[in-house]
Amino acid sequence: MELVDSLLKGDRRALARLITIVENGDAAVPSILTAIYPKLGRAYVVGVTGPPGAGKSTLADNVIEIWRGRKYAVGAVLIDPSSPFSGGAILGDRIRMQRHSLDEGVYIRSLGSRGSHGGLSRYTRQVVQLLDAFGMDRILIETVGVGQTELDVMEVADTTVVIMGPESGDTIQTMKAGLMEIADIFVVNKADREGASRMAAEISAMIEIREYGDEWRPPVLLCQANKAIGVEELDNAISQHRGYLEEHDLRESHRRALRRNELIELIARYFRGKVLNSADAGALEPYFKRVENLEISPYEAAELILQSDILEIVLNSR
Amino acid sequence: MELVDSLLKGDRRALARLITIVENGDAAVPSILTAIYPKLGRAYVVGVTGPPGAGKSTLADNVIEIWRGRKYAVGAVLIDPSSPFSGGAILGDRIRMQRHSLDEGVYIRSLGSRGSHGGLSRYTRQVVQLLDAFGMDRILIETVGVGQTELDVMEVADTTVVIMGPESGDTIQTMKAGLMEIADIFVVNKADREGASRMAAEISAMIEIREYGDEWRPPVLLCQANKAIGVEELDNAISQHRGYLEEHDLRESHRRALRRNELIELIARYFRGKVLNSADAGALEPYFKRVENLEISPYEAAELILQSDILEIVLNSR
Repeated sequence: MELVDSLLKGDRRALARLITIVENGDAAVPSILTAIYPKLGRAYVVGVTGPPGAGKSTLADNVIEIWRGRKYAVGAVLIDPSSPFSGGAILGDRIRMQRHSLDEGVYIRSLGSRGSHGGLSRYTRQVVQLLDAFGMDRILIETVGVGQTELDVMEVADTTVVIMGPESGDTIQTMKAGLMEIADIFVVNKADREGASRMAAEISAMIEIREYGDEWRPPVLLCQANKAIGVEELDNAISQHRGYLEEHDLRESHRRALRRNELIELIARYFRGKVLNSADAGALEPYFKRVENLEISPYEAAELILQSDILEIVLNSR
Repeated sequence: MELVDSLLKGDRRALARLITIVENGDAAVPSILTAIYPKLGRAYVVGVTGPPGAGKSTLADNVIEIWRGRKYAVGAVLIDPSSPFSGGAILGDRIRMQRHSLDEGVYIRSLGSRGSHGGLSRYTRQVVQLLDAFGMDRILIETVGVGQTELDVMEVADTTVVIMGPESGDTIQTMKAGLMEIADIFVVNKADREGASRMAAEISAMIEIREYGDEWRPPVLLCQANKAIGVEELDNAISQHRGYLEEHDLRESHRRALRRNELIELIARYFRGKVLNSADAGALEPYFKRVENLEISPYEAAELILQSDILEIVLNSR
């Protein structure tokens, strides 16, 4: 495939076109991703997430700057939140980040989440694969940490940075959003503002309560992203986390688990398609009708179906 | 099952306990929902959603008040947002709404979305089924309209009310969150504030652009929920929408589709469990290993699996 060959040779236009193809869910996606599959696993992926207004884009911009200072090739995936209620600053921040787009060593792409219906994490993973195959050393994913969909996106990251600001509200409430579970590093941004050190202390206290045992214990860093203060420390923490992952073989096992999930998802989608077809016209149709008519519950219907050989018939149907 | 018998006789404590059982994902859930299944389909379900701070709880409170004036038995399901970044007013609003909890004709329950991992819409549907079987005439679901998970929750509603306030930000941006697609009725709340009529005009203009044909065209209502102004008009609009649905047999067909989806979901989950087992130890294991080792892509593996009879073996495995 010519486009893939160009991608592997480092052609930026081929990269852009392939990402668009992936975004559109084109029929060529499986063959594209199959062609690049053996080249994967090189790039280190860092996720940045947190509530609206915490300073994610500014921090991401700083991290990219540091990486560029080391001559790393950098890819960045910016996820537009599925909710627009996160304030109007986003666009401005992202335009600011575009200063890197004049840099040939950086490729930045925004991914819209609209209409993706839970497929966002799949698209993100596929785009990360394209950036990886292109030869990026580092890939940064930025997403607003609201909702399960956005958290799922972070699964693809090797290191997840959760950033919060003193204005992000009650720490405990924030943690309830599931950020505690996914954070490898905490950053309290806007360290010069009131409440920042208290927030850092609260997060540290919550980390104390959890029993990490030998596991990685997320550091809590104070930062002023708008002045690039504390960003070197963040970069160090990312390196330390990477060292921890590699020492315990966790990076590879995480990636293997992602690959495993990808296959499970493909098989499950195939099966679901078969069931949908058969629910409309095939062997399952009578069961669906009885459930629709409230004659039997879905649980009873499932029981009956599983006790029969109907699913095999469904699998073999054309 | 004794608890279900008590529920069907109108025992509120049985209702409360059954909801907790459903929330915990207890093993008894299938038999409980099977037992109540033939009793379903009576309650009319209204969803209220919109951005944080729009006044959802206050409006919901008013709607419940009107329904109670007509002696309807009312159930309310309040979904805690998976994100806490929606402002601190929520708890206060909900405490305010608790005035109805002194009323024997109202049952209010908050459902936490934490850790539900996309299962929130399933739990909500199950709780709505319990309330329906209990004998509620009306069920109100309130959720913050941020993220796909929250939008999915609204699928169970017969009528979906989208409420926005002048402070909800740019109308077009708001619509991008997918609210345009799910709204049966728009309410612009805080009608006395600056920008409210402009927002209503913008929404109307966006409705004009869409081609509804013979389909239901969402009305745009102005409201002051804190003074109960415009709530009667909202209740009328809900009745009109209900009339439209019933006239076109859409309410029944929507419910049939939901029942159908429930069965599809059950079968798909069963199959997924089988695949997971087999991926670890069974017939699929060699394929998973090759994908993990980057020897073949998930797409190639899926192709090989589908061309073989392995999925049948997986289905028949214990």
